[in-house]
Amino acid sequence: MKDNLRVVLVATRNPLNIGAAARAMANFGFSRLRVVNPYDVAFREARSAVGAAPLLQTAEECSSVADAVADAVLVVGTTAVGHRELQHSIRRLEYGARLILRALSRGPVALLFGSEKFGLSNDDLSHCQWLMRVPTVSQDLSMNLGQAVALCLYELSRDPKAISARPERIKPAAAAAQEQITSQLMDALSSSGYVNPLTAASTEEKVRRLVRRLNIGVKDAPVLLGMLRQILWKLRK
Amino acid sequence: MKDNLRVVLVATRNPLNIGAAARAMANFGFSRLRVVNPYDVAFREARSAVGAAPLLQTAEECSSVADAVADAVLVVGTTAVGHRELQHSIRRLEYGARLILRALSRGPVALLFGSEKFGLSNDDLSHCQWLMRVPTVSQDLSMNLGQAVALCLYELSRDPKAISARPERIKPAAAAAQEQITSQLMDALSSSGYVNPLTAASTEEKVRRLVRRLNIGVKDAPVLLGMLRQILWKLRK
Repeated sequence: MKDNLRVVLVATRNPLNIGAAARAMANFGFSRLRVVNPYDVAFREARSAVGAAPLLQTAEECSSVADAVADAVLVVGTTAVGHRELQHSIRRLEYGARLILRALSRGPVALLFGSEKFGLSNDDLSHCQWLMRVPTVSQDLSMNLGQAVALCLYELSRDPKAISARPERIKPAAAAAQEQITSQLMDALSSSGYVNPLTAASTEEKVRRLVRRLNIGVKDAPVLLGMLRQILWKLRK
Repeated sequence: MKDNLRVVLVATRNPLNIGAAARAMANFGFSRLRVVNPYDVAFREARSAVGAAPLLQTAEECSSVADAVADAVLVVGTTAVGHRELQHSIRRLEYGARLILRALSRGPVALLFGSEKFGLSNDDLSHCQWLMRVPTVSQDLSMNLGQAVALCLYELSRDPKAISARPERIKPAAAAAQEQITSQLMDALSSSGYVNPLTAASTEEKVRRLVRRLNIGVKDAPVLLGMLRQILWKLRK
């Protein structure tokens, strides 16, 4: 399905931005890059850069937006906040990406990015069914092109279920190990004079609760015990 | 709440990357940037670059990771896929961002990014409670630093409700306008010899259904009518 996405860079000027777009594509598993009227030197530079993504080598050069989007069943333009464009409906990235994913299961989708300075022209935009914008806070500050590409591809790759997917927790040490730590720590505290003999019982309870709150992992328990034993040994010498 | 986030760049080498990180912060409304041991020339260059975000001017320079995270109630390191690190639990961006948002409501959170080449060192990582990774597909290809910062800040700014927020739809033309278009189109088709008089009735039904499927907007209807009228005028001449 990711093969159905065509990332189309229109009139990009900076080779670093073409390279950054290609790198983001590789990061998220997209492979079809098309460039429309790139500044020739920039495109050649980006292509020959050390470490250039292989997909830059296979990038297609198109002479017009019409050519670049010809096979697409859905053509979406990206835009900055506060764009002058009023002819299209504008969708936020979170929602637009859902629509693009649905279309990708049916056929090719072209996602257009304009030049660093001017964005997409009205002529470029007339090829688009609708526009998508990254929800930035500032009206005045456009996004870096490579970052805009990365954000769109991330949203397309995002796994909504991952929000609730709990990571593997650190396996906790068994109660016996925690009690061993508690008693060694108590010994060390007694030896060092921290414990007032009159309140030793309540101190022990406090220490026990504190050790339980630390959520000591099964691997950390022997390390902590080793430390305490060494300290005890030195205290008793 | 966004004021509580400290973006910490550790040992960043490339001024363009410092600038890109600052730009992404401005894009998403974050303002507290800290740099640890930046390559001095790079930091000075990034600061003095034309169009540098004002927050680069107020960026704090720290001499150690401990200094840079001192006020944080939560310290999170970012990492590439397949990172060697085994001492920390690693959380995907989608989930990690939820935890960071929760912590931001309680106090400062430090989010660490390592150098372009080596990422965060084991020493840097030992200051972190857990690690967060961007879910890229490739194990081998690290992310561009500016893009990684942009993705993390986007996820923190993302509005889950925006997925279901429907955009304003184009207001559709009224049935009368659609019927006017249908009849003018039929006239033009008849005049041009497209319609077989024997099947004219069924052709008209087909045309009517086709026009309804076009979802013509209230503003586009008069434009289309004007086009058809002009064509008809020419056809009848």
